[in-house]
Amino acid sequence: MKKILLLGAGRSASSLIKYLFDNATSESWYITIGDINVAHLQPLVEPVAFAQTITFDVHNDVQRAEEVSKADLVISLLPAIFHIEVAKECLKQERNLITASYVSSAFLALHEEAQQKNLSIIMESGLDPGIDHMSAMRVIRSIKEAGGKLTSFKSYTGGLVAPESDNNPWRYKFTWNPRNVVLAGQGTAKYIKQGQYKYIPYHKLFKRTDELFVEGYGHFDGYANRDSLSYREPYGLLDIPTMLRGTLRRQGYCEAWDVFVQLGLTDDSYTLDGSDQMTYRTFVESFLPPATSPGQPMAERISLYLGVPADGEVMEKLAWLGLFEDTPVELAAATPAQVLEKILKEKWTLAPGDKDMIVMQHLFAYELNGEQREVTSTLVAMGDDEVQTAMAKTVGLPVGILAKLMLQGKITHRGVVIPIYPELYEPVLEELEEHGIKFVEQERVVAEV
Amino acid sequence: MKKILLLGAGRSASSLIKYLFDNATSESWYITIGDINVAHLQPLVEPVAFAQTITFDVHNDVQRAEEVSKADLVISLLPAIFHIEVAKECLKQERNLITASYVSSAFLALHEEAQQKNLSIIMESGLDPGIDHMSAMRVIRSIKEAGGKLTSFKSYTGGLVAPESDNNPWRYKFTWNPRNVVLAGQGTAKYIKQGQYKYIPYHKLFKRTDELFVEGYGHFDGYANRDSLSYREPYGLLDIPTMLRGTLRRQGYCEAWDVFVQLGLTDDSYTLDGSDQMTYRTFVESFLPPATSPGQPMAERISLYLGVPADGEVMEKLAWLGLFEDTPVELAAATPAQVLEKILKEKWTLAPGDKDMIVMQHLFAYELNGEQREVTSTLVAMGDDEVQTAMAKTVGLPVGILAKLMLQGKITHRGVVIPIYPELYEPVLEELEEHGIKFVEQERVVAEV
Repeated sequence: MKKILLLGAGRSASSLIKYLFDNATSESWYITIGDINVAHLQPLVEPVAFAQTITFDVHNDVQRAEEVSKADLVISLLPAIFHIEVAKECLKQERNLITASYVSSAFLALHEEAQQKNLSIIMESGLDPGIDHMSAMRVIRSIKEAGGKLTSFKSYTGGLVAPESDNNPWRYKFTWNPRNVVLAGQGTAKYIKQGQYKYIPYHKLFKRTDELFVEGYGHFDGYANRDSLSYREPYGLLDIPTMLRGTLRRQGYCEAWDVFVQLGLTDDSYTLDGSDQMTYRTFVESFLPPATSPGQPMAERISLYLGVPADGEVMEKLAWLGLFEDTPVELAAATPAQVLEKILKEKWTLAPGDKDMIVMQHLFAYELNGEQREVTSTLVAMGDDEVQTAMAKTVGLPVGILAKLMLQGKITHRGVVIPIYPELYEPVLEELEEHGIKFVEQERVVAEV
Repeated sequence: MKKILLLGAGRSASSLIKYLFDNATSESWYITIGDINVAHLQPLVEPVAFAQTITFDVHNDVQRAEEVSKADLVISLLPAIFHIEVAKECLKQERNLITASYVSSAFLALHEEAQQKNLSIIMESGLDPGIDHMSAMRVIRSIKEAGGKLTSFKSYTGGLVAPESDNNPWRYKFTWNPRNVVLAGQGTAKYIKQGQYKYIPYHKLFKRTDELFVEGYGHFDGYANRDSLSYREPYGLLDIPTMLRGTLRRQGYCEAWDVFVQLGLTDDSYTLDGSDQMTYRTFVESFLPPATSPGQPMAERISLYLGVPADGEVMEKLAWLGLFEDTPVELAAATPAQVLEKILKEKWTLAPGDKDMIVMQHLFAYELNGEQREVTSTLVAMGDDEVQTAMAKTVGLPVGILAKLMLQGKITHRGVVIPIYPELYEPVLEELEEHGIKFVEQERVVAEV
């Protein structure tokens, strides 16, 4: 009997829990699920003998030590800031750990100790980061093994809404943390294009988008992520002339979102004076220059200020959110980003039965045998409903599969590891296909070099 | 004999030192000037019996305590971050202190102790903050005493170049810390207009300017300062519907500066990859989208990207700075703001004989006896040369005059004090006039209410 301690039982854990339960009997696992609130898991856990829930407080040192000591493997889906305490406990008690979060500098500092103790801390094992690394590395390796020379790598991921639930003018609903969606892209996006470093400030990010096309699903816009450069080294692409990682949205979303950025509505750095007295309309008003004529409609003022048509699709999206109406904000001492998040949640929450959709597309260019060639590798994954979302599946299943590989003794990489090695990504990508998470590759010759 | 300890002998101290020396004999002062580097003051101090210089290290606790103990009054023109240690020493040893810097929260915390010990810590006593408070409060008091009701107060200050030295297309040269000029306005500008709070994000700040006119000196553009609201309380204007504080530049400057903001050149939050390999041109290139045709000139690309004419005054300003040329940057691990500062310093440094100019304008609107009235109060002050600058005079003289008042026992306000009281500002403004620093008021009736 192997004991798994899963910390974090939020919405994104649903598919991972299902995977662990489905494999518990055949793999001989006992699963303990710990979170501050586990009541909602009772109906799931009660009928089975191989799992229990515990009320778990990550700040309780005694409990943390006790539960880690009982486990053979720890999985943490807790908020990223709490991982490091769990990781230190795992190192102390010589337990392996898997998370879906980014490797922070605090984690890098644990690499050597984990190696010395023959332990694996597997990170960036969800969707993005996670499946993006795995699927990209598979293509990169096959190009390199054939003797090809990579000249460009662009990779985009989007958590979107499935076509059958795609029923609002933004063509978007929240499928993960709304706050992160509101703050997305803040800072400066860095990438490299034909050997020239490029920097896009936040206020230009949603204007400088790339257009992408996915067969059967139409056109998308991609905007650059903050850091496209740090993966050159782990991917073995240190000398690649062009590399960009980005986020996908339906066409038209970015142009409309840019209005929020231009107005200043996504700012989270200060609180608004008297936000509890505001309505949606006066909230927007506080970011607008004075009207140029008395009684000028707000749409016309936004149009004059930002150069978007007063009666086009952008303005339709804004009006649909109710931004020009006197709906009370009802938030005290709120930042602009908090008010915007509240407004968006009213409209962008998944309804019962709504299905989400993950789209990931990698675009590679390379030279081989005197030819310039292009490969695209594309994933489209659909949610089953508003609980077993595509987001929950693509985050949870790779974590679950890695847990299985780990407990089967099939993972030999030690230290702080991300899934860029065939030993990790080949079996994960293979098993993901059984769950309908499958990349489609298309290749073409562009020109003779 | 009264002993004055002046800490900080940088460029901005020149006029204060001159004022202290001019008054030393008649006021019976002995002046000790302390700074890390005081060698340049030797020619000034050697011939006189009433002053000395000392090498002073603000981080040396023993020296700090010893020098403060010898003084009757301490004046600090050190960088603002060092003031608080000096202030704490002054409190401990029961000495009065004058600085030209903003009251920080660390200083607010000293208010009560200073009051209890019957001490005065006089802050915000230079130009801006300083003369702006004094001159505004004089007008505000006279309007209120006449029974008027203030409806609007706008106040702008600019450190500029005198007409006779105004010989570059930007009509600007550095007359204070260049780094602060490059970073000016970052964050969000907050003000209130007709009872509505207004927020301008940094990327819109240099577009949303006000036009000002100063007789004899022409047109200026004003952009809003970060915080126009916090002075409502000390000014006694808590219910004023419109209040804005801003910075003045010559017409056309803000429109051209906005190109830097839009491109991202003023960002100080990250370092550029390979900045030591960059030229001015490749520095700009790293912020531009791809050319839309081969060999497209940079001016045309900036024009297409940002919507400024390719052959207008803005582009002329950029070209004059040499931004499109392959001049090496020669800075390692530099932020965009650091590179821009270096480029600007090459062109914007005061030449020998150059004179600077301070312009300050307050605009008041008020109602009195059924009339809507407007008052403007305007200061134009010229520098003598590149050492006795208008900036050094307007910062140093009010500090010096307040020092004299303090040592004469004429200041009764205790605690952490800013010069908003007639006891402080009346004698300062009066004596400043003897030095040619004089406000001109113009008043007119706008309409019957």
